[in-house]
Amino acid sequence: MSEQRGEGPAPKQTGRRPGPVSSYQAVLAAARREFGTHGYQGTTTRGIATAAGVDTALIHHFFLTKDGLFEAAVGQAFRCDDLPAQIDGDRAQLGERLVAAFLRHWAQPEVNDCLRGVLRSVHTSALAADAVRDLLGEGVLAPVIRQLGVASVERRAALVGAQLVGLATVRYVYRLEPVASLDPQQAAVLLGEVFQRLLVGRL
Amino acid sequence: MSEQRGEGPAPKQTGRRPGPVSSYQAVLAAARREFGTHGYQGTTTRGIATAAGVDTALIHHFFLTKDGLFEAAVGQAFRCDDLPAQIDGDRAQLGERLVAAFLRHWAQPEVNDCLRGVLRSVHTSALAADAVRDLLGEGVLAPVIRQLGVASVERRAALVGAQLVGLATVRYVYRLEPVASLDPQQAAVLLGEVFQRLLVGRL
Repeated sequence: MSEQRGEGPAPKQTGRRPGPVSSYQAVLAAARREFGTHGYQGTTTRGIATAAGVDTALIHHFFLTKDGLFEAAVGQAFRCDDLPAQIDGDRAQLGERLVAAFLRHWAQPEVNDCLRGVLRSVHTSALAADAVRDLLGEGVLAPVIRQLGVASVERRAALVGAQLVGLATVRYVYRLEPVASLDPQQAAVLLGEVFQRLLVGRL
Repeated sequence: MSEQRGEGPAPKQTGRRPGPVSSYQAVLAAARREFGTHGYQGTTTRGIATAAGVDTALIHHFFLTKDGLFEAAVGQAFRCDDLPAQIDGDRAQLGERLVAAFLRHWAQPEVNDCLRGVLRSVHTSALAADAVRDLLGEGVLAPVIRQLGVASVERRAALVGAQLVGLATVRYVYRLEPVASLDPQQAAVLLGEVFQRLLVGRL
């Protein structure tokens, strides 16, 4: 590991960030950009600290390690704030609403940058692959699916995760048409029944 | 480009390979292993030539460039010889048969090595992404779907391609359970209806 642990001098603020909450957000925003641009292996906590205008020790204070920071940044890319709200509506349209929520989430530029970095990093870092695997399962999808009261939660989470990874990769990395150009709602209509089946259908 | 074009001296055989057909196969086998291990960017035609026991000029004779060789190797990973035969059986089980054929194809160790390298390379090489995009569309899936006599061939090919990429990534790169451990037939039963819908359902 080329990580420096935050020991020795107390966290040194550069003065650009007024307090811990905005420093935390600044670090996370810088991490999203750095991981997105350089992938997991090409990113250092030192580089993120410089980009965020904070001392490296502060990153270790917030996130302990580069892995912890990666998981937090990855979480932002895969964790979709609108997801829980989709559960409450008409169950027959759940699949379509879920796809639309993810596609709207991914369309945000800062999420999109991070998402592409994450999708890339899993291929060159076992740690990144572990983080994404855990996030797709218990981190994001399994808790949502568990609320549906269906059987085979882990299996459904893994199959839905595969769909989302494939959709994101083909849309944003391969740019395979016409999937790359579909607007979120068109894609949601096309894939709604597929997700519906994996979420609540017989498996 | 660090490529050496095969000009100047005639192809020089090392004597390990008796003729052009087996040299061609040896180059392709070495390319699968090298691209699988090192990805597109980390692989050189010189390294493949050494691994195959042939002169670099012979690779350029067969494949012109590293890109041409990558496309041929990628083609082997994504092109599934059993695919056309799946079209002829009972149309109602087409989705299940197609998934099973891909999963059997991917389970072959030499294909699996190459597939993982290809899935990785698309994230760091626009050329690799282009090659995979073209292969998923017109190279592999669109011709098969076209034979089904359905509308929206390109759209179906892209959506089926997204499913296959997601399934391969989650199964072989993230190793997300229980998808990673499903045998091909179990996975085919689980995902058959999803593929069926994308292949021949209303879109």
